[in-house]
Amino acid sequence: MDTTKNYYETDLETRISKIREIIDSSDKEVASQLCEGMHYVDIVEALDNFEDDEINTFINLLSFENIAGILENSWEEMQMLISSFFTRDQLISIFSYMNNADIADLLGVMPTYRRKDILKFMKESESNILNLILSFDEESAGGIMTTEYIALKEHLTVENALAKIKDIAPETEIIEYLFITDNHHRLKGIVDLRKLLVAPEDTTLAMLYKEFPFFVYATDDQEKASILITKYDLDILPVVNKNMAILGIITSDEIMHVIDQEYSEDILVMSGVNKYEEYDSNFFESFKNRIPWLSINMITAFIASSVVGLFSSTIETVVALSAAMPIVAGMGGNAGNQTLSIVLTSLARGEINLRNNWKLVFKEVGMGILNGAIVGTITGFILSIKYQNPFLMAIMAASMVLNMIVAGVAGFLIPLVLDHIHVDPAVSSSIMLTAFTDTCGFFIFLGLSTVFLSNLI
Amino acid sequence: MDTTKNYYETDLETRISKIREIIDSSDKEVASQLCEGMHYVDIVEALDNFEDDEINTFINLLSFENIAGILENSWEEMQMLISSFFTRDQLISIFSYMNNADIADLLGVMPTYRRKDILKFMKESESNILNLILSFDEESAGGIMTTEYIALKEHLTVENALAKIKDIAPETEIIEYLFITDNHHRLKGIVDLRKLLVAPEDTTLAMLYKEFPFFVYATDDQEKASILITKYDLDILPVVNKNMAILGIITSDEIMHVIDQEYSEDILVMSGVNKYEEYDSNFFESFKNRIPWLSINMITAFIASSVVGLFSSTIETVVALSAAMPIVAGMGGNAGNQTLSIVLTSLARGEINLRNNWKLVFKEVGMGILNGAIVGTITGFILSIKYQNPFLMAIMAASMVLNMIVAGVAGFLIPLVLDHIHVDPAVSSSIMLTAFTDTCGFFIFLGLSTVFLSNLI
Repeated sequence: MDTTKNYYETDLETRISKIREIIDSSDKEVASQLCEGMHYVDIVEALDNFEDDEINTFINLLSFENIAGILENSWEEMQMLISSFFTRDQLISIFSYMNNADIADLLGVMPTYRRKDILKFMKESESNILNLILSFDEESAGGIMTTEYIALKEHLTVENALAKIKDIAPETEIIEYLFITDNHHRLKGIVDLRKLLVAPEDTTLAMLYKEFPFFVYATDDQEKASILITKYDLDILPVVNKNMAILGIITSDEIMHVIDQEYSEDILVMSGVNKYEEYDSNFFESFKNRIPWLSINMITAFIASSVVGLFSSTIETVVALSAAMPIVAGMGGNAGNQTLSIVLTSLARGEINLRNNWKLVFKEVGMGILNGAIVGTITGFILSIKYQNPFLMAIMAASMVLNMIVAGVAGFLIPLVLDHIHVDPAVSSSIMLTAFTDTCGFFIFLGLSTVFLSNLI
Repeated sequence: MDTTKNYYETDLETRISKIREIIDSSDKEVASQLCEGMHYVDIVEALDNFEDDEINTFINLLSFENIAGILENSWEEMQMLISSFFTRDQLISIFSYMNNADIADLLGVMPTYRRKDILKFMKESESNILNLILSFDEESAGGIMTTEYIALKEHLTVENALAKIKDIAPETEIIEYLFITDNHHRLKGIVDLRKLLVAPEDTTLAMLYKEFPFFVYATDDQEKASILITKYDLDILPVVNKNMAILGIITSDEIMHVIDQEYSEDILVMSGVNKYEEYDSNFFESFKNRIPWLSINMITAFIASSVVGLFSSTIETVVALSAAMPIVAGMGGNAGNQTLSIVLTSLARGEINLRNNWKLVFKEVGMGILNGAIVGTITGFILSIKYQNPFLMAIMAASMVLNMIVAGVAGFLIPLVLDHIHVDPAVSSSIMLTAFTDTCGFFIFLGLSTVFLSNLI
């Protein structure tokens, strides 16, 4: 292997200038060489820097096979653009180089009338499978499954099975596992191809297959498939309908993308960013994504602020309180976020739920008491020296303990309750938590200070 | 397939009571039935609820093959415990049911003297491979690779190759791809097993293989492998040494775990939790994990608080400022976190770096001006009515714009600079960001108020 062939190391500038040359010269030969020497992903990344009509020129220099490769590796907007360059019949020819899952994705981004028109003109066996995949939600097990697997009837002999496999292998995604079904296409179990290769030729598959206890229904959420595959370290997971007939399979490398997607979404939505925003989204898009969340934050900030306003006469009397109060609120937010992040990652892995684990809330209460006492005493000690007021220490310690209990309980219960009522906890937990810890933090600290005001003066 | 065989649906209580029965009866027969009817992952999860000596009793009822299964599916502490129950020779027998990557993991958690002792008594061919894997960092490509793949010399014919594959297939993890090497074990390319199955018997592999442009060095970080496999949708990635000799392969399902691990770590460390804390970690462990971060937060909270202290005479004069100032600081934190989360997820995907993308900082400046102007004007308008002071609006709007610029720039640059100097940005970005936005928020707002104090009274 030639080390200079590490195409993925080619930098973006080089790739862009190569594509520029090809567009300027309209040289089909060079265009096809480019597709051979570079990964489609890298070509698509570079194409993103060109105008629509330039992309049109470039794409039309390519063979249908290469166009299929480009389409499979494009994101939605690019797929919509490129597919708009072609007629129905051209697209059907391009589809012959793509697998069903990718064709379904592509049809899914097209306008309905176009999709229907194309499906009408495809082979019926093809369009039936595509219609099936398209009938499931994009983020369901049926929506991400592949239909390119090998299913064999249990009465076949090893010899017949091997002949069949040679026949259909080129069209399948997975050949390592063979799915064994009865005459009603119901899944009986799986056979490892290795076992088949070394078995006597006249054995029947019924004697070879092993039951496979894992499956998902096509309508199940992709997250269920992701949890099963990750937890039990599965290479493949069959997707079945209500009658246990096999419809497709989900592979561990598809799940890799699901995990990648769901986690980045979690990180983004936890911070109040729309999950579709990218680091290089354009200015207006980013603005549109971020301002709604900032507006919600503004409302909760106002609530916290008006709690402070309630105690303005206390603050007027002991102005040092205004410097101390953000510490109580802020530390509560931090402590609550620690709990929240643990609950959210455990939820993503399907390890925790409200019904089975609510008792752990007492651990958070204990944690709030202990951490609050430590942090509160230190903070109070320093402040009481600085402002020469020993009572500040007691009030600070008590407020910190109380607010950290609030923080722990809220950080623990908010995501679990949201999950329980089927609201995505990643989206709303963090803002609700901060609203709680800020408002309670100010209220507890300024409230206690007001009650013991005579001691503070 | 019998739907009642969905072992993964068996709840924890049932599994615990089954294991309890087995321990009480010491019935080897029932123990082995349990292992057949349940996934090892589920058994290990239940075992975690027993005392060490109970676990010892249970494990000793099992066959070596089942013990191997339990060990492969255990986390570190459980592996350490279980392996301590056995002698060197017993462990070597158990290893015969495990693959090299798992054996290396297990040896890695043992005390050094034990590891050395075991390796000394293993077959040399085995211990050489294990020593090789153990020589790499746990989180490097070499540390996560599997050595169970099929490598064939290029001069072999299809007939010879198929005979060899039948021979070694049972021991390999991946049979779909065959790695073709020259006489020096240097990787030349790969052949898809499907292609081999349909090729004429006398063809040589040299005529069949396709170059494969992707590889990682064994010393590369696992994240590099993860990025390549995800970006280019690879099923497998060869791991080579400096001479391009193939040492092992990384599969997409191994990467699934890497992604899962790295993202949850990111979410946890972003919120100031040690990456090893679980939702059910015991109280003292959780306390130990969380208090250091809270202490660091306390320091930054003090810095912000002392900025407020600087302006106490201003606050004394216009006490409404104390209610308004948390809004400026808080909104800055929120806006900064939006930017931060986008940069962090892009960094995790290897899409962004300081050198190529620093110019995007200007977008964040623009975003700060626009969002700050909108949020600041609304906030200022409401406050100026509430406190009947029109100047408050101008000061609020100006402070919000300035602090949101600070927030955007800090949220963008902090993670990129940390990444550039090879500090994990997930760990420290968020605390640095909040320190910035709080301190600057208070300083800007109270500073401007002090300058224009005469207008506020």
